[in-house]
Amino acid sequence: MYYIGVDIGGTNISAGAVRKDGELLFKKSVKTGKERAYKEILADIIGIIRKVQSEAAKNPLHGGAVSIGLGCPGSCNKSTGAVEFSGNLNWHNVPLAADVQRETELPVFLENDASAAAYGEFIAGAAKGCNSAVVITLGTGVGSGIIINKKLFYGENYAGGEIGHTVISADGPPCTCGRKGCFEVFSSATGLIRMTKEVMARNPNSKMHRIASEMRKVSARTAFAAAKQGDKAGKSVVDEYIKYLACGITNVINTFQPDCLCIGGGVCNEGDYLLVPLRELIAREIYSRNSVKNTEILICRLGNDAGIIGAALVND
Amino acid sequence: MYYIGVDIGGTNISAGAVRKDGELLFKKSVKTGKERAYKEILADIIGIIRKVQSEAAKNPLHGGAVSIGLGCPGSCNKSTGAVEFSGNLNWHNVPLAADVQRETELPVFLENDASAAAYGEFIAGAAKGCNSAVVITLGTGVGSGIIINKKLFYGENYAGGEIGHTVISADGPPCTCGRKGCFEVFSSATGLIRMTKEVMARNPNSKMHRIASEMRKVSARTAFAAAKQGDKAGKSVVDEYIKYLACGITNVINTFQPDCLCIGGGVCNEGDYLLVPLRELIAREIYSRNSVKNTEILICRLGNDAGIIGAALVND
Repeated sequence: MYYIGVDIGGTNISAGAVRKDGELLFKKSVKTGKERAYKEILADIIGIIRKVQSEAAKNPLHGGAVSIGLGCPGSCNKSTGAVEFSGNLNWHNVPLAADVQRETELPVFLENDASAAAYGEFIAGAAKGCNSAVVITLGTGVGSGIIINKKLFYGENYAGGEIGHTVISADGPPCTCGRKGCFEVFSSATGLIRMTKEVMARNPNSKMHRIASEMRKVSARTAFAAAKQGDKAGKSVVDEYIKYLACGITNVINTFQPDCLCIGGGVCNEGDYLLVPLRELIAREIYSRNSVKNTEILICRLGNDAGIIGAALVND
Repeated sequence: MYYIGVDIGGTNISAGAVRKDGELLFKKSVKTGKERAYKEILADIIGIIRKVQSEAAKNPLHGGAVSIGLGCPGSCNKSTGAVEFSGNLNWHNVPLAADVQRETELPVFLENDASAAAYGEFIAGAAKGCNSAVVITLGTGVGSGIIINKKLFYGENYAGGEIGHTVISADGPPCTCGRKGCFEVFSSATGLIRMTKEVMARNPNSKMHRIASEMRKVSARTAFAAAKQGDKAGKSVVDEYIKYLACGITNVINTFQPDCLCIGGGVCNEGDYLLVPLRELIAREIYSRNSVKNTEILICRLGNDAGIIGAALVND
């Protein structure tokens, strides 16, 4: 007996078989190709679910699949199973759970991807044992999942928790959601790459140019790699990135004061180089700096698996 | 039998006798004089509580006081009864509940003032009957109280819900909390007056100058009054004020998606002149604009009484 979790990201669709205790048995992955039509992406989602079932069928100990949990970016209505709006995928009111259910004949549950990842970290990762946690995923966008009193928080219409789409710099650069200056615009990997490119253009002698040509692209690592080599322009990008990230996280803490705030996504591979100055800035800015108890800032432990595990188990 | 509620604001301290059903029997008020030392303000808080008791004693039907609830701006630790930090009052770790209890010999409960006001609106005002609500008070500062599943939400250290201290314009004007560009900096009455003065200085022919001299001061009403008389500069202040207010409220909705969001404070006396364009801007910006159910934007009904009623009853 196992649970299928599917994590639909802006870049990859990953799916896996998850045991009731949170262990991910194995996973499969395919490119999202988010510029494609919904029907094409849907076909790939169904395809990867079938691959998980075929793989699981090879080991009789796994038993049968209980249900399918889909983690998807955007406003996901748990009761109708429709994705009401997803800026990153450009989906408007698509009946995702119903479409998957028709093809798979299993119970299908829809969940916001960041909520699913948060639940995964809460069940089996960095937020395990907490009463409340906010998990912020710094990826193509900025996703967030909120756990209050050990339960996912959704708001009254399942569209809550879109912390990535709270403005931290009014009149800032445009966001996919239609607003300007959202947290996501600055703190997503996409935002980091944009800032990196802007500073590279103004600094032709920066080491970022050599690093980018070695990596064959400007990535979320370019500025960090240059900064670690003493590059001033690279350092200025990193400082700016951490400044906005601290700003957004401080907003979250001033609002929720959770037991812990976990950040995930590729940029967290920078470890202490990111975490130490981030914690310092936040400690200086939070409204509760005189409080005895304050929110712990942690790095997520499950990586991309969190979304699969959380999506698989959140309706169990 | 009645409950004493005290609302400690940046401008006034108000206290009243409240019935179990939420009815405010009568109230008393005194200036806060927030520039004074804690001990002096404390003496006035105790003084006004005694006045409420003396007044209640005149009518034997009122019976005795059950308890005292204190609503105070800032981080209020409900379990210790200490105000851990209040930017507006410049208090740091003051044992307010214990100090009042020693003098009054009644059970004393401490509550954040905006949480108390939110609870008052939830019990007897605009948010009555909701499952979740966010109440934002636009006063000297911007207070907020959050109700989730019919209960006040505090975070893990009672310091949560400081939505006024979430940054909406990074590197904006300084806030009393030490950050820059907080929601409070733009959307408080203080912020409106600052913006009004700035625009007046640049527009010597604006009708705002005549209105201010008639009112003998620049107030939160100056720009609205001028705008209603067709004054362009006044209108630009009003538009700017509503723009930032919509920005902060949209952030709250994208995060919490409550049944209703209620705004209170003197500026709400502008009624539809404020509410109509505010609702339009929010409806255009919210992430959930495609959702069937969206947050209702309402104006608080109880005015300054909400804080007294909520503080009195929240621990009942």
